[in-house]
Amino acid sequence: MAVDQLQLLALKNFPLVHPGDDLITLIIQNLGEQQIMLNPGDVLVIAQKIVSKAEDCYVVLNEIEPSDQAQKLAIQVDKDPRLVELILRESNSVVRHCPGVIIVEHKLGYVMANAGIDASNIEHDSNDAVERVLLLPESPDDFAQQLQTKIARLFGVNIAVVVNDSVGRAWRNGTVGMALGVAGLPALRDRRGEQDLFGRTLEVTEVALADELASAASLLQGEGNEGRPVVLISGLDIANMGQASFNNGAALLRPKEKDLFR
Amino acid sequence: MAVDQLQLLALKNFPLVHPGDDLITLIIQNLGEQQIMLNPGDVLVIAQKIVSKAEDCYVVLNEIEPSDQAQKLAIQVDKDPRLVELILRESNSVVRHCPGVIIVEHKLGYVMANAGIDASNIEHDSNDAVERVLLLPESPDDFAQQLQTKIARLFGVNIAVVVNDSVGRAWRNGTVGMALGVAGLPALRDRRGEQDLFGRTLEVTEVALADELASAASLLQGEGNEGRPVVLISGLDIANMGQASFNNGAALLRPKEKDLFR
Repeated sequence: MAVDQLQLLALKNFPLVHPGDDLITLIIQNLGEQQIMLNPGDVLVIAQKIVSKAEDCYVVLNEIEPSDQAQKLAIQVDKDPRLVELILRESNSVVRHCPGVIIVEHKLGYVMANAGIDASNIEHDSNDAVERVLLLPESPDDFAQQLQTKIARLFGVNIAVVVNDSVGRAWRNGTVGMALGVAGLPALRDRRGEQDLFGRTLEVTEVALADELASAASLLQGEGNEGRPVVLISGLDIANMGQASFNNGAALLRPKEKDLFR
Repeated sequence: MAVDQLQLLALKNFPLVHPGDDLITLIIQNLGEQQIMLNPGDVLVIAQKIVSKAEDCYVVLNEIEPSDQAQKLAIQVDKDPRLVELILRESNSVVRHCPGVIIVEHKLGYVMANAGIDASNIEHDSNDAVERVLLLPESPDDFAQQLQTKIARLFGVNIAVVVNDSVGRAWRNGTVGMALGVAGLPALRDRRGEQDLFGRTLEVTEVALADELASAASLLQGEGNEGRPVVLISGLDIANMGQASFNNGAALLRPKEKDLFR
């Protein structure tokens, strides 16, 4: 059945997240404070950054000793050699580089700039002596699954969870929201065999559902000082959307051997 | 000001669109039938396919004479030589190809598979003797601008319009909604100079706002037999979103010389 309405709601007054915080509890508390009831099929989209903060994925740049390889690459791309060292450590391989840009395959498989390492929206020491950056979470899929399971256990409601990040793309300007971690819904919606309006078998066979949700939520999360890291999307008919085998962010990763752009 | 809610509504009972139909009038009539009032900052997202149908961008494959180049490429990619001929005619250049796939730069600048030529959701002759395909619209930006202007003139309301399509991507499985044409909002939201939560200047500087809207709408439009080609997105604070110089789909096209993946 096709749905004809979706609602997106950014949770208000979400607290700043610090290392060691129990993020799942913070999310559940905030839902309670806002008197938001979750319904089956609701999707919670969580900005990667607060997962990383809770998991203390901070690194102090001064503590990083750049390798020879990092120093060489740093000159080519005109970046801080310590940051380049971290990018290399977080990655399986460098896909492309040019001045200002390093595109890598992150160790979790995502192809993205700078291995997703971020220096914005991070608290800094007042005298700026301790420069920190923030890595991606250990496993966005695991976090998504944990939040999904906890809510099912506490409230008896099956929701879905997407952990998203903003990323650049080949061919196009600007960033869009992308799904890093997924639980409770098919990240990739397999529509092979379904028919179109005129009874022909569909040509477009797989929809990156979780990436579309990640982009939709990103409209409310923003990149700047909005402070809206959690978005609730209601109205999807997830129960009828497909195979459980695609219920994770890894389903969205195109295998290298099938990729014309690596 | 950050918004904290968005609503997405797919227009119901939208009629099938035929060559020569006045699509803008059809949209305005449907809004009336559904008793939907447009408000400033609302965004109408229109599936490319109905714009192409109204503009009669159909081509009968039997009327296409494949060139030598098309015949050669057709063998390499294992596709109908007439379709390959059309793909080449619609494109500035072939970016990559392999069996089953031709990625091109469309003559309007989009990098996409098969020049956006589509054979699903198209009415076919009952005996299937006349095989047709559908090209992209002449100018999605022009259509978006015309609809935007007409609604401003008729109702005195400034809305935004996005014409979207579903496309594959480098590195990731599945299709997502992408903006081909844009009017009335910055397709690319320039956030350079803005500050983050902690007063640091933002690193992520440009958000592909129109692509995120295109993906969000795609959640309701679907690819199959949903028949929901028009989606209304309400709640964005478009008036405060940036420069008029980015108010078209072309702003989203990364220049070839700045693209590491061409």
